[in-house]
Amino acid sequence: MHPLAQRVLGREMRATARACRLVDDRTGDYIDLLRDLFPSTGRAWTIGITGVPGAGKSTLTNGLIAAFRKQGKRVAVVAVDPTSPFSGGAILGDRIRMQEHFEDPEVFIRSLATRGTLGGLSRSAGDIVRVLDAWGADVILVETVGVGQDELEITKTAHTTLVVMAPGMGDDVQAIKAGILECADVFAVNKADRDGADSTVRDLELMIALGGEVTKAGAHSRGHHGAVLDVAKQEVSHAGGAWIPAIVRTVASRGEGTTALLGHLEKHRAWLSDTPEGQARREARLREAMRMQLRESLLEIAEHTLGQALDEAVARVAKKEIDPYSAAEELVAAFRSKN
Amino acid sequence: MHPLAQRVLGREMRATARACRLVDDRTGDYIDLLRDLFPSTGRAWTIGITGVPGAGKSTLTNGLIAAFRKQGKRVAVVAVDPTSPFSGGAILGDRIRMQEHFEDPEVFIRSLATRGTLGGLSRSAGDIVRVLDAWGADVILVETVGVGQDELEITKTAHTTLVVMAPGMGDDVQAIKAGILECADVFAVNKADRDGADSTVRDLELMIALGGEVTKAGAHSRGHHGAVLDVAKQEVSHAGGAWIPAIVRTVASRGEGTTALLGHLEKHRAWLSDTPEGQARREARLREAMRMQLRESLLEIAEHTLGQALDEAVARVAKKEIDPYSAAEELVAAFRSKN
Repeated sequence: MHPLAQRVLGREMRATARACRLVDDRTGDYIDLLRDLFPSTGRAWTIGITGVPGAGKSTLTNGLIAAFRKQGKRVAVVAVDPTSPFSGGAILGDRIRMQEHFEDPEVFIRSLATRGTLGGLSRSAGDIVRVLDAWGADVILVETVGVGQDELEITKTAHTTLVVMAPGMGDDVQAIKAGILECADVFAVNKADRDGADSTVRDLELMIALGGEVTKAGAHSRGHHGAVLDVAKQEVSHAGGAWIPAIVRTVASRGEGTTALLGHLEKHRAWLSDTPEGQARREARLREAMRMQLRESLLEIAEHTLGQALDEAVARVAKKEIDPYSAAEELVAAFRSKN
Repeated sequence: MHPLAQRVLGREMRATARACRLVDDRTGDYIDLLRDLFPSTGRAWTIGITGVPGAGKSTLTNGLIAAFRKQGKRVAVVAVDPTSPFSGGAILGDRIRMQEHFEDPEVFIRSLATRGTLGGLSRSAGDIVRVLDAWGADVILVETVGVGQDELEITKTAHTTLVVMAPGMGDDVQAIKAGILECADVFAVNKADRDGADSTVRDLELMIALGGEVTKAGAHSRGHHGAVLDVAKQEVSHAGGAWIPAIVRTVASRGEGTTALLGHLEKHRAWLSDTPEGQARREARLREAMRMQLRESLLEIAEHTLGQALDEAVARVAKKEIDPYSAAEELVAAFRSKN
């Protein structure tokens, strides 16, 4: 067994930090380490936390850490930060607020850097979650800063997904809400003491109702939303064991609503384990996460094998000596014949 | 030659719309179509528009369309929307405001849906940009809604990148700004009539100064920002032919600042074509875009070839019969031996 693996399983904090770094940097024998840890994973409850910028995700995350600690739970936090694609550095941002938990040996906080490669974020997050699961975390909070395709992928791999909204964040929020709607298990409308909180809650209720209808009908979500609302409401209420996203108002800066929020998260966890629908959903998410990881490993090996050939193809396309589609075909052929 | 290709090159609007749909859906002989269009690309100026949600990107984009039309330019807009990974539908959101341009035969607006696959967004965007370039667009505005890893990738492939900010959007914005800083050529501080606009501008000035320093020193951007500021400023001012991001205040809803914004965008375009640094940067971006596309084509072919084997591997990992890292190795071996 990998020497670090033994120490991670022995719940050593510093060894776990080193293991995370190894995995994040993808250096050394990190694959062996992950292989050795894998049998000891699958116990932790992962909660994905996402939402629009400025909604107060970090403050809310901080409140959740404290609440889980009160229950005696071992907590891990993976903060996924956007990174300059050139400098490779990560910004801790307001995660510094979590520092009150830094001294707690039952809380592990890891800020995740990425090298700017497509898909790198979600794979690293998945691997780090596995390390922390093996370390013995009861709960793993995975918090993303951005709200994009890659962040959605990360969110989709969590057992329970919390989406944090705030009142009055403009029209674009509408579009983003639609994108994350089907990933969201619980919505927190944070800064609920501000103007516009009621309308944000109403908006979400409407979108949840429509989401149910849209999914069932297999229809695109464009147009005539008003017209289908009544039908949608009816269908959702008849959905039986399906999970209907909860909406909780919070004022994270004053700790208001955290208990209610925790209650809804736990209700979702119970739904996951106690209902056939929940189990099906849990399996589907696991499959999705695995598929993503396999795909990306495949890509990594291909890039490694092709090396120079990839650079050369890029140069030829840039000079218009070949079109990018034919170049890709040539690369695949080269990859498959190199043994 | 593909019959649609001929009609796209003949600047037929409806044929171009059909070509975009074919490419977006990845159906039929879309690769042949792209291959035929490729030699006629490389003429358009692409401007990536990104920024935090609620900053007013669409209103500003709308203003830019009008400004370019006044110059007699043929304009294309690619609106990249976040999509439900389950329903596959795209939300038009406030893009409806662009409708005043829908009747204009010299303006082509395309809302881009994605199927929720990792990397799908950036590849589709790249292919659609090529179609619109071949159609004869002088300017292509690529607007993203989210601010995540995938959106950054899209932004990196544009010639000129405009980042739209708005005052008072919370702490998370700090982190996001850092992530997009090195992609940004021009910043628009929109809603500049609101409280906090000055401090947003100052913030950006600070980050631009630090960005220069951080990149040069190759250092991570964590910690002690205050201490290095003076040095940073000095270094940036001595940077010679390097591009220093411009900051423009706008009130897009009243059309204020659009002319100044356009001026800075055009200055950047001139820098790209007239300076050695600009040409190097243009080539670097082209290479990056090509590399991304080649990588993703490779992945698509691999997934297609593996088919059932991928599903089976996923199932075995889910049952813990095998770890995901060994499963990936097996898949790659299978892919390379299947001919």
